[in-house]
Amino acid sequence: MDADRFDASVYARRLAAAAAATADAGLDALVITPGYDLRYLCGSRAQTFERLTALVLPAAGDPMVVVPRLELAALKGSAITELGLAVRDWVDGDDPYALVGTALGGGRVATAVTDSMPALHLLPLAGALGVLPVLATGVMRGLRMVKEACEIDALRKAGTAIDRVHARVPEFLVPGRTEADVAADISEAIVAEGHSDVAFVIVGSGPHGADPHHGYSDRELRVGDIVVVDIGGVYEPGYHSDCTRTYSIGDPEPEVAQRYSVLERAQRAALDAVRPGVSAEQVDAAAREVLAEAGLAEYFVHRTGHGIGLSVHEEPYIVAGNDLPLTEGMAFSIEPGIYFPGRWGARIEDIVVVTADGALAVNHRPHELIVVPVSR
Amino acid sequence: MDADRFDASVYARRLAAAAAATADAGLDALVITPGYDLRYLCGSRAQTFERLTALVLPAAGDPMVVVPRLELAALKGSAITELGLAVRDWVDGDDPYALVGTALGGGRVATAVTDSMPALHLLPLAGALGVLPVLATGVMRGLRMVKEACEIDALRKAGTAIDRVHARVPEFLVPGRTEADVAADISEAIVAEGHSDVAFVIVGSGPHGADPHHGYSDRELRVGDIVVVDIGGVYEPGYHSDCTRTYSIGDPEPEVAQRYSVLERAQRAALDAVRPGVSAEQVDAAAREVLAEAGLAEYFVHRTGHGIGLSVHEEPYIVAGNDLPLTEGMAFSIEPGIYFPGRWGARIEDIVVVTADGALAVNHRPHELIVVPVSR
Repeated sequence: MDADRFDASVYARRLAAAAAATADAGLDALVITPGYDLRYLCGSRAQTFERLTALVLPAAGDPMVVVPRLELAALKGSAITELGLAVRDWVDGDDPYALVGTALGGGRVATAVTDSMPALHLLPLAGALGVLPVLATGVMRGLRMVKEACEIDALRKAGTAIDRVHARVPEFLVPGRTEADVAADISEAIVAEGHSDVAFVIVGSGPHGADPHHGYSDRELRVGDIVVVDIGGVYEPGYHSDCTRTYSIGDPEPEVAQRYSVLERAQRAALDAVRPGVSAEQVDAAAREVLAEAGLAEYFVHRTGHGIGLSVHEEPYIVAGNDLPLTEGMAFSIEPGIYFPGRWGARIEDIVVVTADGALAVNHRPHELIVVPVSR
Repeated sequence: MDADRFDASVYARRLAAAAAATADAGLDALVITPGYDLRYLCGSRAQTFERLTALVLPAAGDPMVVVPRLELAALKGSAITELGLAVRDWVDGDDPYALVGTALGGGRVATAVTDSMPALHLLPLAGALGVLPVLATGVMRGLRMVKEACEIDALRKAGTAIDRVHARVPEFLVPGRTEADVAADISEAIVAEGHSDVAFVIVGSGPHGADPHHGYSDRELRVGDIVVVDIGGVYEPGYHSDCTRTYSIGDPEPEVAQRYSVLERAQRAALDAVRPGVSAEQVDAAAREVLAEAGLAEYFVHRTGHGIGLSVHEEPYIVAGNDLPLTEGMAFSIEPGIYFPGRWGARIEDIVVVTADGALAVNHRPHELIVVPVSR
């Protein structure tokens, strides 16, 4: 197996499944420009922006790749060559949108495009097709959100790697150091523990922990701080880790300990709710109910989780209003949090995969508030 | 000045200029989602994807920013707050596209969108407006490609920083080391010499130098290799360096030295051709003619240059067919190359800024083939 991607047979299966899903949706074709969908379908990490690179996948018929001649070499690492897909290269002066139209038979074809296709390509493509495409989100979601064995394996390895980073976090949390100092140590550890890259690092200490979207700052850690550490990396071939633990520098106040114990029960309740047939919103509700019973509902200000894979945030979203029934192989975060503006916050997050009768967590670090001892 | 952006007055000027350019183009409004255009117009580094963040800029009237409530805090570093722009936040369940439509008066408004707007937002926005937007490329190009004094200053500092990296490259080019080893050293040096981030690193040794789009590989350097080193970084507030020099490990063959000297003259001819009123394609032709006279035209397989600023590749493109007249303040690369497939390649690249009567280079390293001595 190439480290950059799975075996070519994985992509052959995915292309066939995407063509079938396109037909099922009453569409004639998908047009996929560089991004996660392209990587999912053919293992290509192409990142061209100004010149059109596109996978053209008819519901019936053979796929074709349209690519600038200068980018031909960059396709070699993908499965495109190994699968023997037709490649139509173009040079400055050619009209690549017309090439896509021709590949689709030249008529007004019902086409769906990847949700990341930039306006720069979408608007001229709509002109060439003579009809406005629709989003391929629905078609791709059904494929991407149910993980195959090789993807689950990658997510598990990513989970183990980020667990090793969290095991080292207490040594980084020294009073007087800044959140940015800690973030630098964590970034280094994310790569050292087996990721190919850092995806994100949140170190929210004291009042900063009350902002779920805080990154890190030059605030210095103090004894008594509660610190939210939410971190993730990229594990080849491109799957993400994402795990949050909350730390206390020195012993926590009794009120903090008490509220944190409710959060721990809420996260456990959501984990326990996961199984095939349960809806995404029921999992969200399971966490929310535990917090509500303790009068903490209003402090949980975001959804319970998000799908994860090639992208850090993808379907399924574990949120009120999403009645999608969970199925075996879906992978997502369970990450309730409580936030007290200006004071402190806490969050507990694991990535789980839906199994035949429950959930498999890929993270295994203890869930409790981790007390970092301070020397006096 | 905030390190992340220029003074707010810079953005106030740009917003006014963009509104005027929108009116000049016969359009009613711009809608700008996160990306370089948003950063250019208001200093925002927002990177939201799934939830709509947009600057709505009417040709006549006040700009408004539509933003998910969870992202409000992230706007604080931009000039939006300091400029007192209206901000309309939204939460899950709201229709952010309808908010944009309402902000624009609710009619079928002639709207142009940033070229990076993803289909995920463009298609529902088109639905809400009842009319397909056009690309804002033309409107934004006129603004972004003519650099202000503060931008030229950033490009010059970026150029000086990458010059310092090239000064250190010979020590990295040791026979037996891989291109990847060298690239790692260069990446470290790019940051150490003052950039905030690495933008790209190309180390093309021997036959790899003949592929203009090569990155780096595990090929080991050998005595006699010609090595193309094309590198760039990000210099705050976000401007790019991009500079290529070619190295010879040990003395070059006479044929290499002879052909390289033609390339050096070609690059010089293009530099000398730059002045206001000359067209982009004339600069391209100046380089090409020198190579053609020496029978090397067919080995120069790409355009002579590209604009540079917040983006590594932007307008103006120095290429045949582009009759755009150069004006004072435009910044772009001059980077002719020659490529002999399977054997070797060479390229010389400087970034230049058009001045009142010529060109100011921001790079100052010697142009000759740099011979790295080898111990025997």
